[in-house]
Amino acid sequence: MYDRLKGFRDFYPDEMSARREVIDVLEETARRYGFREVGTPALERTQMYVDKSGEEIVEELYAFEDRGGRHVALTPELTPTVARMVVARQGELGLPVKWYSTRPFWRYEQVQQGRFREFYQANIDVIGSAEPEADAEILAYAADAMTGLGLSGDDFEFRVSHRDILGGLLESLEADVDTQAAIRAVDKRAKIDVDEYHDLLASAGLSIDQARQFDAVLGADDLEELVDFAGTDRVAEAVENLRAVLEAAEELGARQFCDVSLSTARGLDYYTGVVFECFDSTGEVSRSVFGGGRYDDLIESFGGQPTPAVGVAPGLAPLSLLCQRAGVWPEEEPTTDYYVLTVGGGDTRAVAARVARELRALGHVVEADLQDRGFGDQLSYADRINAETVIIVGEQDLADGAVTIKDMASGDQTQVPLDDFPPEEGRPTYEDYE
Amino acid sequence: MYDRLKGFRDFYPDEMSARREVIDVLEETARRYGFREVGTPALERTQMYVDKSGEEIVEELYAFEDRGGRHVALTPELTPTVARMVVARQGELGLPVKWYSTRPFWRYEQVQQGRFREFYQANIDVIGSAEPEADAEILAYAADAMTGLGLSGDDFEFRVSHRDILGGLLESLEADVDTQAAIRAVDKRAKIDVDEYHDLLASAGLSIDQARQFDAVLGADDLEELVDFAGTDRVAEAVENLRAVLEAAEELGARQFCDVSLSTARGLDYYTGVVFECFDSTGEVSRSVFGGGRYDDLIESFGGQPTPAVGVAPGLAPLSLLCQRAGVWPEEEPTTDYYVLTVGGGDTRAVAARVARELRALGHVVEADLQDRGFGDQLSYADRINAETVIIVGEQDLADGAVTIKDMASGDQTQVPLDDFPPEEGRPTYEDYE
Repeated sequence: MYDRLKGFRDFYPDEMSARREVIDVLEETARRYGFREVGTPALERTQMYVDKSGEEIVEELYAFEDRGGRHVALTPELTPTVARMVVARQGELGLPVKWYSTRPFWRYEQVQQGRFREFYQANIDVIGSAEPEADAEILAYAADAMTGLGLSGDDFEFRVSHRDILGGLLESLEADVDTQAAIRAVDKRAKIDVDEYHDLLASAGLSIDQARQFDAVLGADDLEELVDFAGTDRVAEAVENLRAVLEAAEELGARQFCDVSLSTARGLDYYTGVVFECFDSTGEVSRSVFGGGRYDDLIESFGGQPTPAVGVAPGLAPLSLLCQRAGVWPEEEPTTDYYVLTVGGGDTRAVAARVARELRALGHVVEADLQDRGFGDQLSYADRINAETVIIVGEQDLADGAVTIKDMASGDQTQVPLDDFPPEEGRPTYEDYE
Repeated sequence: MYDRLKGFRDFYPDEMSARREVIDVLEETARRYGFREVGTPALERTQMYVDKSGEEIVEELYAFEDRGGRHVALTPELTPTVARMVVARQGELGLPVKWYSTRPFWRYEQVQQGRFREFYQANIDVIGSAEPEADAEILAYAADAMTGLGLSGDDFEFRVSHRDILGGLLESLEADVDTQAAIRAVDKRAKIDVDEYHDLLASAGLSIDQARQFDAVLGADDLEELVDFAGTDRVAEAVENLRAVLEAAEELGARQFCDVSLSTARGLDYYTGVVFECFDSTGEVSRSVFGGGRYDDLIESFGGQPTPAVGVAPGLAPLSLLCQRAGVWPEEEPTTDYYVLTVGGGDTRAVAARVARELRALGHVVEADLQDRGFGDQLSYADRINAETVIIVGEQDLADGAVTIKDMASGDQTQVPLDDFPPEEGRPTYEDYE
């Protein structure tokens, strides 16, 4: 007997059917916005991640040398791959392009609740627009996907921030600040105590006083306070951009789910403008459910033309925690329209096969006996797969020129002339014949 | 600029939309038969493949040591994972179970036409039935999937063989034969010349005379000749099983696509009973398109209870070659129901956003301007995404209390009162208002 690798999961049909329902909502919502599916490789050159995130990242990757001596890694996220693909077809693509996909990613990290080494994410990106409408469309997409899952504004909130406000505020402190390090400190703020947070800000180059000032202004109620505090065009423009995004989100119906929260920073270094994270409003799911944001510099840094972009990446595992907490996780059980039950010999098998074929041709989910089992065992199996209707093809039925239609919920059944069954269209049940 | 790894592919939206249509047919057909989706990991312990196929297999794998010192491999196929999953829940599963999934697999091998290092396959398996009905259901599924793709009996054929007939014939030769090696020779027969084939049979333990005899009897027109030749119960029973499978396939409408072809053997060692390969009937696609068969011993060899199983695994790449040859590969272009075009200021953006939202809520694919572009550029974009209908929200339209509906095929357009648009249901086009 072989064991499954730690941090990897097998999804058996019941759980998978619920996951598939969730993925279908994420993808169908994306399609309605005109996002188009892309397919992407599971392996990329390790260098692509090292260049963006430093040599340390390799420790978190499934990285190895392939048989051709290439240093390769299982993709830990999609965004670098998207950037590579845009650069590879630069000029042909006709921007903007709007892409989505759902697939697994891999990171070698500590396994804990809702966090695995193999994890599934949808990625939804608008590439080639710097306008606030693009950021708003990503927020609106995310809000529609969440409400499509049955979640409401009581269940989730988007904490919206802006990298350029954070960067501009730090710049205005006139300290020799490592902006990325300071933003990473902000990103960790909720997870660490205040002393540790101030220590991180200090090692990013802020004095204790500056750290306190910075911290206080991040919590300001009014964005105008930030503009006044910084007194720079950069912050004024970033605040203006954030307002424009929120206004466009209002027009798309998504503003109601957004809270401005400048202490939300997103860990990844490549974000540039608006960033946001989705949280459980009740706090029961304590970590960020998913996040997104603008990454205007990444594609250029990959050797492409300057190409603004913005995206979001809902992960299945944290999303399932939220949906379960909110009581909207789909039922984990199979559904089956028909089970075609055969009893006795003669033509019963041939007729049952024809009935099953014709019902399948109508688009229904139909199972039939594959085990040469008796009546009772077949009925148990039909019950186990939650068959709504059982079509009984017995010797006596055929002698009567009929089949028996059994409703599995009530147990009621009736005979129907074989010539009339199945009809040429529709989804015949007991009720149509009682 | 980073390059893509050799043998790996990026699928941009046009090509991906065609691939998705094909995957949808493969999966929707499986669902109608009551197959249930499973989700499976990309990594497994390398030992699982070594135990089944010998140490040589590692040369064809993306195998490496992970950071925890585990010897792991990117999964080269699904069947061993399916066997592992069945063993892990032995007793709970309530057999038979019917599983499907579609995902990438990886093999480090020579890249050639229709063969890549990362390749996508659907896998469809019936686990827990030894009856001919299960083999027939797999054949019928495969035939329905192929005809669902628009292919006909002129395009493809299933060459059906039986491992136990081959094994039984070899046994009856009373030579000291390495059965697996001889079957591998049969599998290679079409790809090598007759001398090389006889050499392989010889090194499997057959004399030249025996090799010729074996070869001749494989080509027999009548299965009864095989029974007579061998004169053993084993071959008689295997022939009886093959006949029963073909009869059950007849009842399910799939017999017409099946040719008995005993020189079809499938390379993998774990097959036991009926095996088959799908070929292009015209021979233009020269290699097997996909294959399947019965593997009754695999689950037991993984430490489980004896559990018969049968499955098929259509691969996207060879299937696309066949569909392209037959002229049924889906159109590689985007489809869009509506583009909502904004001209001028005032409330145009807000109204356009509302119209887009309402059309999306009806389930339609709707794009709108994300670039603050002019009329002409927006119309070009709408054309590029193949928008069927453009809804123009201009200042003049709003002054008239209307929007303009433009049919992109004809260029015809007309104004519709804003209060009536969009209606509460349906898919409004120019024709509804002309």
